[in-house]
Amino acid sequence: MDAAAELRGSGVSPGAGYGPVHVLVGSIPEPAPDSRYEGEAAAERKRAAAALERVADDLEMRGAKAGGAAQDVLGAQAMMARDPGLEVGVAELIDEGIAAPRAVFEAFGKYRDLLAAAGGYLAERVADLDDIRDRTIALLTGLPMPGVPETAAEPYVLVAKDLAPADTALLNKDLVAAFVTEEGGPTSHTAILARAMGVPAVVGCVGATLLAQGTLVLVDGASGSVRLSPPRAEVDAVLGAAASREAALASVTGPGATADGHAVPLLANIGGPRDLESALAHGAEGVGLFRTEFLFLDRGDAPSEEEQEAAYRAVFEAFPGGRVVVRTLDAGADKPLAFLPPSGEEPNPALGERGLRLFRKYPEMMGSQLGALARAASGTSARPYVMAPMVATVEEATWFVSAAHEAGLADAGIMVEVPSAALRARQLAAVVDFFSIGTNDLTQYAMAADRQVSGVAELQDPWHPAVLDLIALAAEGAAAAGKSCGVCGEAGADPALACVLVGLGVTSLSMGSPALPWVRAALSRHNLEQCRTAAAAARGALSATSARAAARAELPGLSDLGL
Amino acid sequence: MDAAAELRGSGVSPGAGYGPVHVLVGSIPEPAPDSRYEGEAAAERKRAAAALERVADDLEMRGAKAGGAAQDVLGAQAMMARDPGLEVGVAELIDEGIAAPRAVFEAFGKYRDLLAAAGGYLAERVADLDDIRDRTIALLTGLPMPGVPETAAEPYVLVAKDLAPADTALLNKDLVAAFVTEEGGPTSHTAILARAMGVPAVVGCVGATLLAQGTLVLVDGASGSVRLSPPRAEVDAVLGAAASREAALASVTGPGATADGHAVPLLANIGGPRDLESALAHGAEGVGLFRTEFLFLDRGDAPSEEEQEAAYRAVFEAFPGGRVVVRTLDAGADKPLAFLPPSGEEPNPALGERGLRLFRKYPEMMGSQLGALARAASGTSARPYVMAPMVATVEEATWFVSAAHEAGLADAGIMVEVPSAALRARQLAAVVDFFSIGTNDLTQYAMAADRQVSGVAELQDPWHPAVLDLIALAAEGAAAAGKSCGVCGEAGADPALACVLVGLGVTSLSMGSPALPWVRAALSRHNLEQCRTAAAAARGALSATSARAAARAELPGLSDLGL
Repeated sequence: MDAAAELRGSGVSPGAGYGPVHVLVGSIPEPAPDSRYEGEAAAERKRAAAALERVADDLEMRGAKAGGAAQDVLGAQAMMARDPGLEVGVAELIDEGIAAPRAVFEAFGKYRDLLAAAGGYLAERVADLDDIRDRTIALLTGLPMPGVPETAAEPYVLVAKDLAPADTALLNKDLVAAFVTEEGGPTSHTAILARAMGVPAVVGCVGATLLAQGTLVLVDGASGSVRLSPPRAEVDAVLGAAASREAALASVTGPGATADGHAVPLLANIGGPRDLESALAHGAEGVGLFRTEFLFLDRGDAPSEEEQEAAYRAVFEAFPGGRVVVRTLDAGADKPLAFLPPSGEEPNPALGERGLRLFRKYPEMMGSQLGALARAASGTSARPYVMAPMVATVEEATWFVSAAHEAGLADAGIMVEVPSAALRARQLAAVVDFFSIGTNDLTQYAMAADRQVSGVAELQDPWHPAVLDLIALAAEGAAAAGKSCGVCGEAGADPALACVLVGLGVTSLSMGSPALPWVRAALSRHNLEQCRTAAAAARGALSATSARAAARAELPGLSDLGL
Repeated sequence: MDAAAELRGSGVSPGAGYGPVHVLVGSIPEPAPDSRYEGEAAAERKRAAAALERVADDLEMRGAKAGGAAQDVLGAQAMMARDPGLEVGVAELIDEGIAAPRAVFEAFGKYRDLLAAAGGYLAERVADLDDIRDRTIALLTGLPMPGVPETAAEPYVLVAKDLAPADTALLNKDLVAAFVTEEGGPTSHTAILARAMGVPAVVGCVGATLLAQGTLVLVDGASGSVRLSPPRAEVDAVLGAAASREAALASVTGPGATADGHAVPLLANIGGPRDLESALAHGAEGVGLFRTEFLFLDRGDAPSEEEQEAAYRAVFEAFPGGRVVVRTLDAGADKPLAFLPPSGEEPNPALGERGLRLFRKYPEMMGSQLGALARAASGTSARPYVMAPMVATVEEATWFVSAAHEAGLADAGIMVEVPSAALRARQLAAVVDFFSIGTNDLTQYAMAADRQVSGVAELQDPWHPAVLDLIALAAEGAAAAGKSCGVCGEAGADPALACVLVGLGVTSLSMGSPALPWVRAALSRHNLEQCRTAAAAARGALSATSARAAARAELPGLSDLGL
């Protein structure tokens, strides 16, 4: 192994990944003011024009792929890149001897000032213009394009200072072999995302962003090793071993339980029938979160009840005799629907008319979804559970549960993701059939920290003891009323946190399917008392980081798994 | 009294108000498709052109008054109103016999479709265009202008279906004689706002929005009576009696305390030295919330330390020997500062880099504010308290408190407004000198309901038992560490809720000054045990409405006050 150089960090998502490095760049540095080119002006002008054209083509292509409103926006951006005035401005600067990247920088600068001075909506286009400028300069200088690659010939290793949800929103997981970040800890967004996606990850890896684009690296997400340009034999050996280990883990498909036999059903989060194959392959005992937004997004009107019924039936039929928990439409916030507009402007959509609140405004939409679900389930042996997102009060819960029961759905529950629902769990448990905790939103609201903003990333951590307090309140409230209380947020995909959740009284765990084998293995190596001790240790801590350390000290079986 | 007709509702903010009715209109109805005018086309064209010109003038005038970015936006809107193409379009329709309001509606409709079809940023201007259209039609039809009047010859009675924070953000309180709403209850935004402003209010007043604009009404905010066109003698008698009562209440300027002598210092919320006169006139024992944003808003750079020092000293000197609690800069969210930008885009600014989080990014700004505060206090006998907004974790609190102590400020605390801070109050109380609960934001986050959005108004209620739970946790945590725990949100201005807060363990109350005499009177009529019983009754309730009813049943002294 000594033939290759190595960087080291903390392994936070097990498995091995191999591929060329793609360093994520936040912004493109300003080309030096005195940079001049060699050779012919005509050639330099041509180079600049070609780069602008390629950026425009690329924007159009992405627009065509995305469709809808995104296509309009990207099309408008492509038009900016093709602005003849801009090209002339660039050419004139090149004729003065200025190198193409700097010429682009300066010509865009003038246009930028004009837009900014115009004020109002024109000034708001400055960010779009900067994006075109940065993409063009990246092409001219050989710097990596800003943002995550949208296409790649082979899976790459995504390297960044740190990854925020905004960076990874558009990530195509089939293209990512591994994550490596310089910053971030075991509780960072990178770690949670990686586990949910089943992608190996190393965080706290100093020096990683200095690697040249395209360097081939071999990442071990358990040990934290990042080997640089390793020999092919080593790559094959490590990938082979990792594959065998995953296969061995995946073969343990029994029901989830602690070492002393306390059953913890392990369920899959799915976004539609297309995710069923992975859920079944990873041994899901059912579906803990069936997001139904896929039926409603990117269209001009609501899907018919028949269309809904067919999609729901496909999922129910995949789990004969099993549990399928369906979340009713969670539109609004970052998933607005043109045909279900909120009452007015929403300066903070995450705090606006989203989830069940939109059904209060459009009750006929709820009626049709509940009706379609009841009919879809009636022909199958699956046990349908239905739950509403964004419930804050007893009155909302009562309203939803009554409607579901009336529609013939016997098991009607709520997501616990608004802090008030956790605080008032005892009262809510009396009127619902079950709880499912959405740790992502619960963390967002409890810490008042937007999941989409990297500047508050440290606060977006379900290990924060305040979040664990709310989870404990929800679980206790459910237990007092003899109701079940699952978790369907990303927190359940962290094997250590999964044990803590069970210790807090959570009765089932649902997660992205790739994490199921790891969580199953982690639970099987600890008894319920160890989980409870770990939970108490975490709640006694002062911070997310110390909560995790305190819990892990009580969970010795994790190290057997290389976790 | 029988000479005048009367409407009735619930009185929620005591006092009497008299003035012409202004019914708040959300949108202007579409003029009938077949509406035609009488008389000369030229006259009708002139009428339409004059209305458009007056709307443009009005927009420009408002822009000049507002300055800054608002001026750019309003100026651009004025240009739209003066678009020659629009005027021609209107004139052509009038020449076909169509009445001016309908002609305006149709001509704008064509322009609107063009903008909407253009997509992107042009489509975003549709709302501005609709606003111009509605204002023009309002002028032509004699309908009231949409929105709250910005100027008025005399104070008016604002009548609406219900008032949301968005409606009242621009309200000039000197122009409002009273509020009357058809909907809303005693815990609505209208009720809370009215009490904080010291404006009489009646809610749940069916039929109020049917009153003609300009009808003279006499509003009794205690009894809930709204007298229509009452005789002058009655108006004088009622206003005189109300003034005497308020004078009598205002004369009780002793320190706040319950009937059995449990001291509850009553403090004022101020937004700058200009609010000191009202605070002193209403008997404030000090300042419980000194918002310092006024020094930083609407300017291109940060104020110098000298400028800050002078402003802070003016407040300290007004309360010799008294308590002045200064909140450090709470920028971000709905108060962005150009010279302190957040790290990136903020899709939900209320959950972004605001409050202390911006100081983490710009620590030199915190250093200069703390330094200026320490120097300002040093020459006075006031006792300066300093507190940071938006603290979520123990680590943030420790960082702020150390910096304040190092700057020579002995009393350093935090706002409890993020749910995690209330949940972790015991740990936080160990590292800070005091708590001050911000009930407005605490309610917003606990219920995940934006304070600025009317569609979620029912959730923005500090009476929600979940919010009371968090307040109790904060007060208990502070008490266990021997620290004080005040409330400085709008909740403290509700006399009934003020008693409940004291019962929950809150040690001081700070509010808009006009509410001080009422809260002082309410506390003086109940002993501590009654407050505790009322608090327990409220926490046992299932909803905000039932919490309030349960608490009031335990607070008999409120009815003596006509509350």
